[in-house]
Amino acid sequence: MEDFKRTERLTALTQILVDNPYTLFPLRGFTERFQVAKSTLSEDVSIIKSVFKRLNLGRVETVTGVAGGIRYIPYIKEDEEKEMLTQIASELSRGERILPGGFIYMTDLIFSADIAWRVGKIFASKFIDKRPDYIITIETKGIPIAMMTARAFNVPLVTIRRNTRVTEGSVVTINYVSGSSGKIQTMSLSRRALPEGSKVVFIDDFMKAGGTAKGVLELMKEFKVEVAGVGVLVETAHPGDKLIDDYLSLLLLEKVDERNKKVVIRPSHQA
Amino acid sequence: MEDFKRTERLTALTQILVDNPYTLFPLRGFTERFQVAKSTLSEDVSIIKSVFKRLNLGRVETVTGVAGGIRYIPYIKEDEEKEMLTQIASELSRGERILPGGFIYMTDLIFSADIAWRVGKIFASKFIDKRPDYIITIETKGIPIAMMTARAFNVPLVTIRRNTRVTEGSVVTINYVSGSSGKIQTMSLSRRALPEGSKVVFIDDFMKAGGTAKGVLELMKEFKVEVAGVGVLVETAHPGDKLIDDYLSLLLLEKVDERNKKVVIRPSHQA
Repeated sequence: MEDFKRTERLTALTQILVDNPYTLFPLRGFTERFQVAKSTLSEDVSIIKSVFKRLNLGRVETVTGVAGGIRYIPYIKEDEEKEMLTQIASELSRGERILPGGFIYMTDLIFSADIAWRVGKIFASKFIDKRPDYIITIETKGIPIAMMTARAFNVPLVTIRRNTRVTEGSVVTINYVSGSSGKIQTMSLSRRALPEGSKVVFIDDFMKAGGTAKGVLELMKEFKVEVAGVGVLVETAHPGDKLIDDYLSLLLLEKVDERNKKVVIRPSHQA
Repeated sequence: MEDFKRTERLTALTQILVDNPYTLFPLRGFTERFQVAKSTLSEDVSIIKSVFKRLNLGRVETVTGVAGGIRYIPYIKEDEEKEMLTQIASELSRGERILPGGFIYMTDLIFSADIAWRVGKIFASKFIDKRPDYIITIETKGIPIAMMTARAFNVPLVTIRRNTRVTEGSVVTINYVSGSSGKIQTMSLSRRALPEGSKVVFIDDFMKAGGTAKGVLELMKEFKVEVAGVGVLVETAHPGDKLIDDYLSLLLLEKVDERNKKVVIRPSHQA
């Protein structure tokens, strides 16, 4: 193995850490790869930590012990979060997004890989202390932001289906009542998707009355799984009384005025 | 703005590039941020390029001209690709994945953010010369790998729905025949999802007879969009004669023996 200069090691280390969020890399792997002493590598890691901190590029964390190592946590601070959410809100408030029935077209935004990754990083930062084993979502539009939240945590994504498929094996199905339409709906999940006793965070794109989220909580009881958090990108201001109590929304949709083509949407926790 | 040492600049530059694949960053942004001359920054970029190349960490590309800059391309080389695909094939060939009817349970793998990102990087490397404006897929299981392909290209993902939703606005719907079951099915896409004249690559998780892919090609004709490539993670060996000619598969599912719990699956382009 050839020699690496510090500049080269830092470049390689940063690439590996950032390309693999929340993945724990034992230091030994790097000391062997770069043929350096542990103390030299520790100095490299200190430089990365301090630069990331200084420029708000996320966190690098050292985990001590036999199973220890270093990992990159794509953490977003509150001021940056607010800036990102204000931008998304401003894009969503464009009048031409209003659809018949007072809905808003947001598919293009939430399926943008760049925006989904930003939203995923925000959710991961919000739920960082929950340390979920899985991120769960329900098809279809929640998948991109839930996928990116899962990437930020380096945990698997589990997607609840609205219809049963042969490719899922045996499934658990529940019926639930949509809070806004009052219709009976179905959701199902493969028996093998979640082990008992797991801890999950549920991520979705939209919450109106909260019927879907309530259904997901019920379904998780069947799996004996703990739901440690619920995060939605957009919640509607009305109804103010949702079917579940404990959730976090990033954006609040206050009003859609079809006649005057006006949408009022803003970051949920704005002063 | 304070001073940055070369080690610090390299760390920050690498983080920013790798966290934003295929995003073009004008050099001026960095010379201003780090308060350095263009020649100094060019040396930094040379170091990053050479380290990435030496360790197979992807490519950094300089785009010249007024609208130029640098960008990170998460390129996967063939030997690394083969290793990744062999690993996925080996995981998929476990007997307990066999479901009634000879299907294979692969949902957990394709919804793993880590695996989806690897697969997305492979597709992006395979289709790198196509330079798509959009990645398209059809719900549900293709979404994670298609999303990650879109991330690697820094282009939006467009997801064709199987059912029409009010939140999509006016849609174009077509009927198509599933190649394996012979059933009539429906797919639809919002009118505003794709501008005429765009170039897209279609990514999906599975291809049996190719009926879905054929349907997607028809739907794209309605949008006057060019399909520059079709990529599937797994194709089945039977039927050997697919309904579309031009596609790329990463894995070939040769046989599912329900009785003896044996699955034969391998990288498609293995010698």
